[in-house]
Amino acid sequence: MANDKAVILISGGLDSPTVLAYALDNGYKVYPVSFDYGQRHIRELQSSEDICNYYGVKLKKIKIDMTQIGGSALTDKIDVPERGLENIEKEIPVTYVPARNTIFISLAAAYGETIKANSIFIGANAIDYSGYPDCRPEFFNTMEKTLNLGTELGITDGFRIMVPLQYLTKSDIVKLGRRLGVPYRLTWSCYNGRDKACGKCDSCLLRLKGFMEAHDFDDIEYEAYPEFYSEYLKSNGKI
Amino acid sequence: MANDKAVILISGGLDSPTVLAYALDNGYKVYPVSFDYGQRHIRELQSSEDICNYYGVKLKKIKIDMTQIGGSALTDKIDVPERGLENIEKEIPVTYVPARNTIFISLAAAYGETIKANSIFIGANAIDYSGYPDCRPEFFNTMEKTLNLGTELGITDGFRIMVPLQYLTKSDIVKLGRRLGVPYRLTWSCYNGRDKACGKCDSCLLRLKGFMEAHDFDDIEYEAYPEFYSEYLKSNGKI
Repeated sequence: MANDKAVILISGGLDSPTVLAYALDNGYKVYPVSFDYGQRHIRELQSSEDICNYYGVKLKKIKIDMTQIGGSALTDKIDVPERGLENIEKEIPVTYVPARNTIFISLAAAYGETIKANSIFIGANAIDYSGYPDCRPEFFNTMEKTLNLGTELGITDGFRIMVPLQYLTKSDIVKLGRRLGVPYRLTWSCYNGRDKACGKCDSCLLRLKGFMEAHDFDDIEYEAYPEFYSEYLKSNGKI
Repeated sequence: MANDKAVILISGGLDSPTVLAYALDNGYKVYPVSFDYGQRHIRELQSSEDICNYYGVKLKKIKIDMTQIGGSALTDKIDVPERGLENIEKEIPVTYVPARNTIFISLAAAYGETIKANSIFIGANAIDYSGYPDCRPEFFNTMEKTLNLGTELGITDGFRIMVPLQYLTKSDIVKLGRRLGVPYRLTWSCYNGRDKACGKCDSCLLRLKGFMEAHDFDDIEYEAYPEFYSEYLKSNGKI
């Protein structure tokens, strides 16, 4: 039986703030958690903080240095690729971080146990799970069973891993978020943590495509737009 | 299909060094991992190091500060109880650390991915799983499925969580370890990390009971023996 407390995994991108807004909209008392795991786009931590401040909720920061383990472009000195939209899907990207969601959900559950929150919200979605094994529905189902066997709160109350964006595209997410009033201007998706978003990495391309397909416009600044988004802005008289 | 590389979770107590010896005896190339998680009995980390030096294998140390999360006598300022042998079983102890094995196995799997080791050995056993939910066979089975859905190496090669001591009592473990030549004098089980083992905490009591039931004698020093072990030493002319 779910109670009304929920741990929300926050990464500062488009998705997790939408999930936070969704959980609030559904009456949950929210306990956002961010992970300082040695990611290069450390800027997402500031975005997570900004989002939580916007909503007036306290952010729990958990430090787990994944560079100790390595094996990913996000934590190692491996180049983040610029693959173009057509090559993004159907393979595990170099930005995959070994067992990341297993580790993060485990830590979120440990935190949930100490505050008696038995719902864990995570912002994984359809686009992610084409490439990342730990974003697939069957992974979350089994992870939930693992928590319910391996933790005290899981045994007494049952954990529920909530993935409300699971079957949504990025444009669906943008539409949902706008309806819920998510302050997307405070979010950050770019894999390169510079002053402006690069407009070239997988994450920037998917974000801009999402806004475009939602017939919406991204509020954050880019170093340069990819061609498809420039065209879109032009055809809408924005540039 | 399992390859010959194995990540071994090492905690410095009786069990995990026995598992390390068992894996070596079974022809695995071993990659021991210890967790510096803010435990009070930090001395177990030195024991882990000593054991690995003894076997001439390199120890990978992973730091994950569980005091950030709290909720356990092992990481919080909660007193470690002295319950007596008769009260140890059948309830979740205050030394339970929320989701510890889920977190540790996730991190071990992440490390395993980077070195292509798809076996993970852990020293959980029958006595532990009477009290700790994350030491039960059904937990390990589901955790293994989670890794095989949620990680790249799990998908390509399949992870195997190996729990060779699962159905052994402490005395069975002592017998197995002696046969394999485990240097138990280098191990450390006491929850209190003082110069000598306290002889009073759950962990000391179970350890001494194990040696006694194996008709063996513990090599490490104690501040004081519990009555049952003093009797045993007397009746064997040791004191």
